[in-house]
Amino acid sequence: MANHKLIRQLARESGGKIILLVLDGLGGMPFEDYDETALEIANTPVMDRLAREGCLGLSHPIARGVTPGSGPAHLSLFGYDPVQTPVGRGVLSALGIGFDLQSGDIAARGNFCTVDSSGKIVDRRAGRIDSDVSLPLVSKLDKIKIAGAETYVRLVKEYRFMLALRADGLDGRLDDTDPQAIGKAPLPVTALDPAAEKSASLVQTWINAAQIVLKDEQPANMITMRGFGQDPNLPKFDDLYRLRAACVAVYPMYKGVSRLVGMEVLETESHYSPEDEFKVVADNWDDFDFFFVHVKPTDSRGEDGKFLEKAQVIESVDRALPSLLDLKPDVLVITGDHSTPASLRSHSWHPVPTLMWAPDTHLPDRAQTFGEREAQVGGLGQFSAQDLMPMIMGHALRLDKFGA
Amino acid sequence: MANHKLIRQLARESGGKIILLVLDGLGGMPFEDYDETALEIANTPVMDRLAREGCLGLSHPIARGVTPGSGPAHLSLFGYDPVQTPVGRGVLSALGIGFDLQSGDIAARGNFCTVDSSGKIVDRRAGRIDSDVSLPLVSKLDKIKIAGAETYVRLVKEYRFMLALRADGLDGRLDDTDPQAIGKAPLPVTALDPAAEKSASLVQTWINAAQIVLKDEQPANMITMRGFGQDPNLPKFDDLYRLRAACVAVYPMYKGVSRLVGMEVLETESHYSPEDEFKVVADNWDDFDFFFVHVKPTDSRGEDGKFLEKAQVIESVDRALPSLLDLKPDVLVITGDHSTPASLRSHSWHPVPTLMWAPDTHLPDRAQTFGEREAQVGGLGQFSAQDLMPMIMGHALRLDKFGA
Repeated sequence: MANHKLIRQLARESGGKIILLVLDGLGGMPFEDYDETALEIANTPVMDRLAREGCLGLSHPIARGVTPGSGPAHLSLFGYDPVQTPVGRGVLSALGIGFDLQSGDIAARGNFCTVDSSGKIVDRRAGRIDSDVSLPLVSKLDKIKIAGAETYVRLVKEYRFMLALRADGLDGRLDDTDPQAIGKAPLPVTALDPAAEKSASLVQTWINAAQIVLKDEQPANMITMRGFGQDPNLPKFDDLYRLRAACVAVYPMYKGVSRLVGMEVLETESHYSPEDEFKVVADNWDDFDFFFVHVKPTDSRGEDGKFLEKAQVIESVDRALPSLLDLKPDVLVITGDHSTPASLRSHSWHPVPTLMWAPDTHLPDRAQTFGEREAQVGGLGQFSAQDLMPMIMGHALRLDKFGA
Repeated sequence: MANHKLIRQLARESGGKIILLVLDGLGGMPFEDYDETALEIANTPVMDRLAREGCLGLSHPIARGVTPGSGPAHLSLFGYDPVQTPVGRGVLSALGIGFDLQSGDIAARGNFCTVDSSGKIVDRRAGRIDSDVSLPLVSKLDKIKIAGAETYVRLVKEYRFMLALRADGLDGRLDDTDPQAIGKAPLPVTALDPAAEKSASLVQTWINAAQIVLKDEQPANMITMRGFGQDPNLPKFDDLYRLRAACVAVYPMYKGVSRLVGMEVLETESHYSPEDEFKVVADNWDDFDFFFVHVKPTDSRGEDGKFLEKAQVIESVDRALPSLLDLKPDVLVITGDHSTPASLRSHSWHPVPTLMWAPDTHLPDRAQTFGEREAQVGGLGQFSAQDLMPMIMGHALRLDKFGA
């Protein structure tokens, strides 16, 4: 379990420069007739060299057997306990789109949906309308005023939006209104704790107003709300680890979780390749101690069941890696937030292959390539993802000795 | 984390005889042109045989990534949580020199230093004066009387001494007076907790008196104080594990931490070799169930960056090992308290190679030699050093079954 008190006490002001390269959903399984995983079958001469020089291990994102979502998995990678400090999907969405969420605000994810004349849902995503269709609807919702709280509505993407409420004394412990099924009406807002009753009532008032605003729209004539929550006020990287930390990610979600822990989110474009992202690291190399670099398509290809295409994404990262190595990081970790085996077409609980390369401080193991089976016998052993940051800090010579 | 309640409940009155052989700072890294670590390169036919017969693993002294000092690292090896039960350096010093520290006493480490006419420190160690120079000064300090507490001053070594205060209601939560820099005056004693205000005042009174006593001495004309603390009253080995435990160590620090957990400290001379220490074990074999044997120079050679000399120390232990094996211990564990790679010239966070040899009860693994890389794939896996004592107790058949 994360021991922030100890780490904060030991963290030094200075030390090595760190790159944490996260290939989303990196871990996998053999697929159909292939005996190897996507990582194993990928042709990755650079990663294999780093594996030979450094050492491997397997990280467990949450707990053995437990499949994580991306938000909790990244919180673990960053050294926070995602079970003890749950962060609502709404908060991650808000931070991901750059909304200036303030302490105490409630944030939630909204979906446009289609309901029939009796109010029952017939399409939970309103035909997956494009952003240009939903944007004017979001503007209408943003104009709604209710007594007792300021409200903000912002487009996330396509049929998804974010709702934020701002007032004193709000409490984000509210249940989803999405019934997770068609043929049912959206659920009323219910408080998960008595202290959240007032907030439940405010949100219900806003939803009732939204229903009226949307009633003549097609197909987006109603909304469902999910993932209510508030900024958990996590300790920030500069306070906890004394690191000036930067995030290089393309997807809003990962920018959001990075902001939550105090990273500066560097600018990227939605079409950026791994090579483009690495260029952002290079352009900002002197200004930060720690770079979190997030590559999304490994996960997407896994979720689509595209085994060889997942391997190709890994190969594209490998080809771009020399540009990161040219920066001479003191610590380079390559890992995933969780596994996404193409054979399962989903996230999974399998532990995540992790490569620790810190040429001045790593203790080599016998791994010859970067892959799941080599990681199973790697020198890092199996560990909680929450321990990765302390391990990185150690290898960067950024932790004082504990006790004399 | 240590589960003392469970272990105390299960510990048996009888069982196998145990030797815990700790080579300080045993773990290492490859060094310059050598691909092997000091332990791997050392010619250790006896340890290698024990590794073939028994099984290996890696222990984490405090937490992954965290480099321990010797005191906390030994508390972990003995099965205590050093983060939850910190022990001040002063307490370890007091116990190390055999001072009869009583429950409630405050102990601190003192250094003689040199200050200029304005009271600013010009030498934090008073020219590293020899023990024969400091001994008469210690006698003068020991004669100081203050109202409200008895005080005791004892020589530790060279420019270092120990101060103990004895009175009812003392509280050791006091900050160091050593400013850790030259050009600054010693700091006033400050309480780290309001409950320690009275104690802060008593210590300051004593320091003021010491300043007057020393003012005409050269170079030791002032003192600084560090590592204030009190005996944490840890559960003792005979209570917790039902073991009659003995310590064979040369350095005061390790004798001190052994006394803290209730071991009887057997007599040694400062020049003792591993072979001499093993003779002490043999001479006392019938009187104890458990022997903690501490070998210091592995750490010292690592800290000096002397890679091959560290390997030679390990070889000297190996040559002496048959005399321990002749005693027919039921459990022999060879490990370190932490790693001290010669390439880093300091303690490190790398997990510590551990050899468990218990011919009647160990489950052999595939290890062929004793070394870091063999331990990475050893049968004990990677574990918290706090779990080593329960593992030892199990292998010694000294724990009852838990539940029916």
